[in-house]
This record gives sequence, C-alpha cells and structure tokens, in this order.
Amino acid sequence: MEEDKILIAHGSGGRVMHGLIEDLIAPAFDITRLADAAVLEDFPSGRAAFTTDSYVVSPIFFPGGDIGELAVCGTVNDLAMMGAAPLYLSAGFILEEGLPLRDLKRIVFSMADAARKAGVRIMAGDTKVVERGKCDGLFINTAGVGALPAGLDLSPEQVRTGDRVIVSGPIGMHGMAIMAGRHGLSFDPPILSDTAPLNRLVADMLSATSGIRVMRDPTRGGLATTLKEIAEGAPCRILLKEEALPLVPGVRGGCELLGLDPLYVANEGILTAIVEASESERLVDCMRNHPLGQSAAVIGVVMPGEDGKVLLETRAGGTRMLEMLMGDQLPRIC
Amino acid sequence: MEEDKILIAHGSGGRVMHGLIEDLIAPAFDITRLADAAVLEDFPSGRAAFTTDSYVVSPIFFPGGDIGELAVCGTVNDLAMMGAAPLYLSAGFILEEGLPLRDLKRIVFSMADAARKAGVRIMAGDTKVVERGKCDGLFINTAGVGALPAGLDLSPEQVRTGDRVIVSGPIGMHGMAIMAGRHGLSFDPPILSDTAPLNRLVADMLSATSGIRVMRDPTRGGLATTLKEIAEGAPCRILLKEEALPLVPGVRGGCELLGLDPLYVANEGILTAIVEASESERLVDCMRNHPLGQSAAVIGVVMPGEDGKVLLETRAGGTRMLEMLMGDQLPRIC
Repeated sequence: MEEDKILIAHGSGGRVMHGLIEDLIAPAFDITRLADAAVLEDFPSGRAAFTTDSYVVSPIFFPGGDIGELAVCGTVNDLAMMGAAPLYLSAGFILEEGLPLRDLKRIVFSMADAARKAGVRIMAGDTKVVERGKCDGLFINTAGVGALPAGLDLSPEQVRTGDRVIVSGPIGMHGMAIMAGRHGLSFDPPILSDTAPLNRLVADMLSATSGIRVMRDPTRGGLATTLKEIAEGAPCRILLKEEALPLVPGVRGGCELLGLDPLYVANEGILTAIVEASESERLVDCMRNHPLGQSAAVIGVVMPGEDGKVLLETRAGGTRMLEMLMGDQLPRIC
Repeated sequence: MEEDKILIAHGSGGRVMHGLIEDLIAPAFDITRLADAAVLEDFPSGRAAFTTDSYVVSPIFFPGGDIGELAVCGTVNDLAMMGAAPLYLSAGFILEEGLPLRDLKRIVFSMADAARKAGVRIMAGDTKVVERGKCDGLFINTAGVGALPAGLDLSPEQVRTGDRVIVSGPIGMHGMAIMAGRHGLSFDPPILSDTAPLNRLVADMLSATSGIRVMRDPTRGGLATTLKEIAEGAPCRILLKEEALPLVPGVRGGCELLGLDPLYVANEGILTAIVEASESERLVDCMRNHPLGQSAAVIGVVMPGEDGKVLLETRAGGTRMLEMLMGDQLPRIC
C-alpha cells in the first residue's frame, strides 16, 4: 500500500487542497473560518510590529526541534526583540510533491504546539505544491504581528558609552545541532537546538527595567554578526570578553573539531541585549529566574568611540576584531 | 566576465546578505530602518485583516506580469476581498543559488511598482538562499495587513435567496497567459495576465452600496471553484448563465484548443461578488466606471435551496453541475 504523500493536486485550489486544509491545517491551528484573509477583532490600537521570515532549514527534523517549531519561534522572537507582544502569525507552506503526509502532519502539530507555548495564534495560511525536485521537502514562511507599547523604541541608536552587553544563554547550540543532524555527528550528551519562544523572557526583562537599549536574537551569522550590526547601527564600539561567553562543552568541542567559531554559529533561543550599566546586574538576576535565561551573563561593554568596531578580548589576553560573517559556513541553518 | 548571480552567501545573514538588502531590497521598498521587525505607527485601531500567500508561479516572467507583481497584487486582493483597506505587506524571498541578480532586481522593482499602484507599503522582508536544484529560481511569500471597517462582515453566510452574482471582468486571462508563456503558445492579439490590485475597485464598490454580501478573487481553481466554496459556505444554491460570462475570444479559443474549461482557469485581476438583487445593476454600473471593472456583469442568481450546488445554464439551454476543481490541470499558476 502506497504511503500517503503530497500530490500536485494538494496545491490546486480545488477539492484535494480543501481537504488538506479542512482536515489537517485549519483544525491544528484552530482556524474556524476559511476566507481570503483572517479578521483580527480588537486589534490593539496605536503601534504594531510586523515581521516575516522564510524557513528553509535542512534537515527539516533536527536534534531538539523541527522546521515547524523553528518557523513559529523565529517570528515570535523577531517581534519580541522589538519589545512587541506577539499576537498573530501567518503560515505559508511550499510543499514538494511526494513529501510524506505524516511529515507534514508532524510539522503542523509542532507549529501549533509552539504557538500555544508562545501564546500566539496562527490565523492565516496558504499551501502551494511544486513538482518533485523543485523544492527540498518543504519551506515555511511565517509572518507575525504584535502590539508595541507606546513610547518604546529599542534600537541601536539608543546605545550609550558604558552600557553593558548581555546574552541570555549559551551560544551556538542551534547551529551545532543542525550540523550534527546533517552530518550524522553525535555528541554525548547530545547537543539540542535551543529553538524557543523568547517573548515571555522579554516581557519579564521589560518589566524589570527601562534601561534596555536594544535587543536582538543572534540567528544566522551568530552573535558576532548581530553585535556588529548593532555596533555599526549605533554607531558605537563594543568590547566582548571571551571568558564571559556562555558555551556548553559540546559546542566548544564541536566547533574545535569542525574549525568553526561559536561566535558565528546560529542561535534560535537566545537573545543579546545592550543595557544601561547600572541596571545590568539586576537585569541578569531577573533573567536567571526564567528557564530560558538561566545562563544569562554580562559579556561585554560599550567603549568610547563610534567606529562600529566589535573587539573580542581573548582568554589569552589578546584582542581580536570581529567582522560580520563572510561567506556562509553553515548554509540553510534556519 | 561572469554574470552576477545569487550566491549561497547572499542568505548567510552576514556581510554579503547585508549588501544585497542595503543596496537593492531596502531602497526599492523604501525601508529606511533595518531591524528584526518593522514598526507600524498609528495603526488604525479596532479591526484588522491579515493574510498570506506564497508564490511559486512558473515561469517567473510571463505575458503581462511577473512573480513580483503577482505576489503584491495577490495579497492586496485577499485583503480587499474582506473589505479591508490594504496597508502593509511583508516580502519573504527564497532564492536559488545561481539566480541571475538582474532577474531578482527586475522582480523587486516590479514589486515596488505594484505596491505603489496599490497604495501599500512593503515594510518587512527576508531573504533565504538554497543550493542549486533546491528550488526553482525563486519563490516569494507576501503577508499583508489591512484596516477593516467596523461592522463590515462580508462572508458566504450573508448570502440570501434572490441575490445576484457579479463578476468584474473576463475570466481565465491569467491562467491562459501562464500556459502561453510556459508552452511557447502565441495568440493574436496576445493574451496577457490580468494581474492587478483590486483594492481601489473594491473601495468604489463599497462606497456605492451596502448590499454586497461576499467577495472573492477567483484565483487557483478558477471562478467555478470559488463560487462552489461560497455556495457550500453559505450554504446556498447558485445558478450561473454561461452566456453572461465575460470571456475574450483568445481565452475561449485557447481553452477549446487545450481542452480546458475557462471556469476553472485562474484569474489574478478580477473578483466575483454576491450582492442584493435590487443593488446589482447600480453596482455593475459603478464598476464599469473603473478601469478594472469595464466588463463587469451579472452572471448568475442565488436560487432557493441550501444544498451548496453551483449550476451552469449552458448556451445550448441545458444545465450542468459545477464541482470544485479536481486534480490540477495547471500546476504552479500562482
């Protein structure tokens, strides 16, 4: 008996596509009314945040997560980094003919579960199908809308000399988990992706202090690229202390083995924030009370100078200049 | 000299990707501040509409349009069909390694142009790159947010016996243009895709009458599938008159040649509406004053009965029952 697979007709707009949507996708996301667009009643007035990301991660199932959970968390986190409360997500699927239906089901349920955990609703969706060989299993796009508090402006321009740089957890977990999944490497203990929704951690942080200047989740390009973006955007100069960077032994060892720098390896469940110096210890204490912030640490300081440089004070006592990621050491990490 | 092409590094999150975004995509869309999410200031309070669509049309350039224009208009139209005023769009690109940069440029400019015509702003974007052979040139996702007037509820449930069915223009143009592009067919005069933003036509219609029950843009699956969705959703019974259907000679001839039924061929620049009978002639007159509604016509009536059937009274005087599209005669039409 042939296993159930995605057919070209699942993207036709016709009866077969309606079946897929009515039997699987709409119930999983609790979408009760199918129309050209979702109606958001009582949308918070004033300010909103709006973002989108497409996900092409390979493999689609990896240690500690899958493309569905990633697609929800990634977009939730982009909203949270602006200080917005994520509310509504859309989900656009591009499916390859022949994709096992059970894979799609697993991913859809994973998205629904991640949305519940983050407290957001997936309100709108779309399904397209391309022929065998015209995409790689499936790609997912999520867009998201959130409510942005009045007066909140988290941006690199807010950064001041003397501010501290904070990271919420160990770096490089997601990228290393993907590498392990892709190349059949195994670690003991296993390295799992850190994929997680950061919005509740962010809500705690914003309640604890008004001293946060800017936040970012260091995904593609890793922590170094993200801090370089902030330093150039401010503009300011950032000094990081290598010995302060939270790093699990497996990521350290894996990076040494593979010749990678963990500062350039992607993360999907941590954030970096720049915060007023006098608030930094209190903020780190607050973050450590949250399950996703247990390893929060001050990792650097904003130095005098507006040259957009990011410097790393190494364990050996030297100083290294960090640039944005050049080339792409780990394609399709998200 | 090798032509400029998309590299894996264009999706890395690093320096090369920043170059692509800062040099091409952000300026084209007039995005001045790059962050994890866009800030929508002064979002109209109360009700919003939210939608998403991924576009995988093949070929990416076709007679009368391209995937970029389509991606903007399709999402604008989904918002407009709910009666919402489209405001903000996101754009997620999945690019294949080796895609000529000039193709991407042409498509990005086409999106910017379509957004200007529709009066919407592309506020958020994302770029991913997959290896050669892992997607088909490029795929685009657009999500959109619009403001929904208080009290407006356009939905199949509003349909009443005696209501009239209206279509805004000739059917089957987009699908036939794609077929021509894909298979090298030529028509004289050429058949061009009808891709267009319908939001201004819809605004005129909503100003003209409060008698509109439901609107839809009959894209994938064509007019028959769309009306079948409405009939099942209401539930109601719809009777169409074949002789009233606006159809250009090329589409009629092309469909005969290829064995296609124009009622199942996709459209990207027309809408169908169900409207209170007493308002239907006035509404059609109003629509004919708009460039996109010049061929507007009453094409059917809502009959007594709640069986979800759509019947076609043929030119020959017989009656044919219309189902949703089965299978997929024209894959990757949008």
